[in-house]
Parts: sequence; C-alpha cells; structure tokens
Amino acid sequence: MTEPAASPAAFEARLRRIGAERYHDLHPFHHRLHGGGCTPDQVRAWVINRYYYQHSIPMKDAAFMSRVEDPALRRAWRSRIEDHDGTDTNEGGIRRWLRLAEAVGLDPDYVASCEGVLPATRFAVDAYVRFVREKTLLEAVAASLTELFAPAIHARRIEGLLRNYAFANDAALSYFRQRLNEAPKDVAFGLQWVLDHADTDEKQDAAAKALIFKTDVLWAQLDALESAYVLPARIPPGGWVPGEGLLSRARAS
Amino acid sequence: MTEPAASPAAFEARLRRIGAERYHDLHPFHHRLHGGGCTPDQVRAWVINRYYYQHSIPMKDAAFMSRVEDPALRRAWRSRIEDHDGTDTNEGGIRRWLRLAEAVGLDPDYVASCEGVLPATRFAVDAYVRFVREKTLLEAVAASLTELFAPAIHARRIEGLLRNYAFANDAALSYFRQRLNEAPKDVAFGLQWVLDHADTDEKQDAAAKALIFKTDVLWAQLDALESAYVLPARIPPGGWVPGEGLLSRARAS
Repeated sequence: MTEPAASPAAFEARLRRIGAERYHDLHPFHHRLHGGGCTPDQVRAWVINRYYYQHSIPMKDAAFMSRVEDPALRRAWRSRIEDHDGTDTNEGGIRRWLRLAEAVGLDPDYVASCEGVLPATRFAVDAYVRFVREKTLLEAVAASLTELFAPAIHARRIEGLLRNYAFANDAALSYFRQRLNEAPKDVAFGLQWVLDHADTDEKQDAAAKALIFKTDVLWAQLDALESAYVLPARIPPGGWVPGEGLLSRARAS
Repeated sequence: MTEPAASPAAFEARLRRIGAERYHDLHPFHHRLHGGGCTPDQVRAWVINRYYYQHSIPMKDAAFMSRVEDPALRRAWRSRIEDHDGTDTNEGGIRRWLRLAEAVGLDPDYVASCEGVLPATRFAVDAYVRFVREKTLLEAVAASLTELFAPAIHARRIEGLLRNYAFANDAALSYFRQRLNEAPKDVAFGLQWVLDHADTDEKQDAAAKALIFKTDVLWAQLDALESAYVLPARIPPGGWVPGEGLLSRARAS
C-alpha cells in the first residue's frame, strides 16, 4: 500500500515545483504592485491587509513552539519571533512594517489596530495560525517553506517599488531588506528539517499538501485585495475605505 | 464603566439592522443569480462552493453541542443536525443540495468530494466552525441568527431560479423550500435564547459582533465566487475549472 519515499533531492524538487506553480509572485496584484501600476490607495490597502499577516506570524510561531517538546528545535525556531517582535538591538519586522505604513501616508496606529482589514484576509491568515496549532509538526514546518520563494519576490519588490513609487526609499523598505538577511537561515533550517522528517511517502504527501495550503493562504490574501480595491472594486462591509486612517499630511495632500 | 443593557426589543432591532446592512442578499452575485444573469458555469461554481458551507454546518452544530452542558439546550439544538444529515423519514438538506447539483449538470460525487472548492470558501467556512468551537455559547448562538434573514432570500431565490433557469423545478429546489419550513423554528429559538442571555451591555455587544462576523463569513463566500468566476475571472490555483466534475449528459450537451 505505502509507496517508498522519494529521495530528499527529488522531494525537494517537488516542493520547489509547488512554488513555481502556485506562489503568489504569480498573482496579478503583485505584477501591478511591482510594476508601478497600483494607485496610492491600492498600495495602502495592501499595506493594511498584509500587516494582519505580519502581526499574526509570531503568534503562529509561538503556537508552533507551544507544541514542540525538543528544546533544541524550540531554540532554533525562537529567532523567528525575535525577528518579528524585535530585541534590544533590533526593532523587529512589525515595527518596520509600520514604518512602511507611515511612508505610504497611513497612521501606524490605525494600521496596528487591524481595523479595516478585509474579513477574507482574516479568514485566510487565521486559517494558517490554526493550521499550525492543529496539524503535525511536520506539516507546520512544511507550511513555512513558502520562505523558499520569498527572497526572489522581496528583491523584485525592493527594485520595483524604488523605481516606481515616490514613497519608496531605504527607510520605508527596510522590512524587505531585513527579510533578505533573515529568511535564508530560517528556510535552510526548515527545509532540512522537512527533508529529514518526511521519511515516508505518506509524510511527503502531507508536507507537500501543507505547502500547497500555505500558497493558498497567500494567494487568497491577494485575491481579496484585487476583489475589493481593483476595478470593478467591491469593498466588502467592514473593509478599509480609502480616506480612513490617513496621516494628517496625507489627508491634506 | 458598564452601560445598562438595551431592552430586548431594542437589542432585537439592533440585530435586525445588522442584517439589513450586511446580509449577503445585498451582494451583487446574488442579484445576478436570482435575476437570471448567471451563466450555467457560474451557477455550478455557486453550487460547488456553497456545498462546502452546507457540509460544514452539522459539524458546526455538533461542535456547539459538544460544549453545551444543559441537556434541554442540546435537545433543542439537535434537530438542526437532523435537518441537514437526514433521518429515517427525511433525506436531509445535504442530500437535497446534491440533487440541486445534479440538476445543474454536476456529478454529485464530485461535489460531495469538495474538490475544487475555492480556498477562500474553505477559509471563511472553517472560520465559522472554529468560531463556534472557541467562542462563548452566546456568541455561537448569535452567529446562527443570520437565519433571521434567510427566509426572505430563500423565497426570492426559489422564485428567481424558477423564472430564469431551465434546470430549476420543484425537485431541484427542494432544499430551499424545505428550509422555509425548518429555519423559522430554529431562529425563533435562537433569537429568544440570545435575547434572554445577552443581559448586559457587554454581552449584547459580543452577540452583535458575532452576528457581524457571520455576515462576513457569508459575504466572503460570494466575493470569492465573484472574483473567481465573474469577469474579469481569476480562478485561483486549485479552484474548480469549468468542465470538471460534470455529469456525462452535461458534458455531451
């Protein structure tokens, strides 16, 4: 009944194919964002909604650690929370994201309140946190492997935003530059862990399915943005309405 | 600090206003569906995705009952599961929905497999099941009160589908007609329970918020359909692609 497991190299290739076929760098909203085709309000809507993802990731990592019995694995994982929440010497990714919010004219307190986040964004992101809380550790680590594909999109994003938008400068984009430093160590660890632990065909299937689930989580966030804020735009009840939550200088301009 | 609770009548009016402002009868997809403007594939996509909601509701009700200590409340709630899953004398709502699937040319086994359900549909519906699993009983019952607004949409749907679509007949639409009989008893019970138990301002706020959450769950499902299957249609990876899961007679036509 059970098939033999694929070799680690073949299994890694299978995981990378999932990214090539389903990662959200393929979504039209990202093409528009990086190519300069987004209006200021579309960029703001992206910043507001993506903040909800950022703000949930350390909770996701804490949920993971709460289920890990091995201190070495918890210790290896802990730096993810530090990267986002900050340390004495590092302001952390969430603060950096709020500086991006300010750069695009949004009140960071408004963004941090998570008011105006689209319900569909919440449903998708919350599904990820709960997935990590409920599924096997292998599936939880495998779901994090979308980071395999992140450095390429971050590099493209920095370049595209700098070229195409007046708000973009090194301070505003420090989140992405910092992630280029942080993500590779996380993903090297996570990938090796998955390759080591997915030692049956069944576990490899579960890990691949978890990674697909995660690409769905990311894709659904962009679909929600596209549906709400790109013509024919249909902002659902409760979603951010352009004009809300602006810094006073942005309101004046 | 705490405000006095509003009177039951004023609180009921507040709940009904939420429906008037946010219930999914206001969504353009429903206008198109009931007005005859949907293509056969758009109707199929609705049937496939809405099936996921139908299939999850008895799990939601079981999750609720699993947390209720009072046998009388469990007994009152149990008929909801019977209505959906069926009894010796009633085939149940899920079977009826699959007859609708067949009437629109879909293979009921395909629909029951939940393959092709949009990820965003899953995220929204799963969020509802988990809400009921995790929140207070008051919030769980309050979330069910979108049924207050369902009879009107079901009546309009029966009339609109019969008038506008060749597939529509009494057998195909028996799900909706049956719900017109079942829902009123459920919602009368649920509404009275919420009015009785939301006896502080804080509990009334929590109940109102739960009902808003539920309207978001319903709205997000239609947004996902509209985004994937209405022009400019962008079916996300993994979503049903027209042509899949058809009955052979529908494939031939």
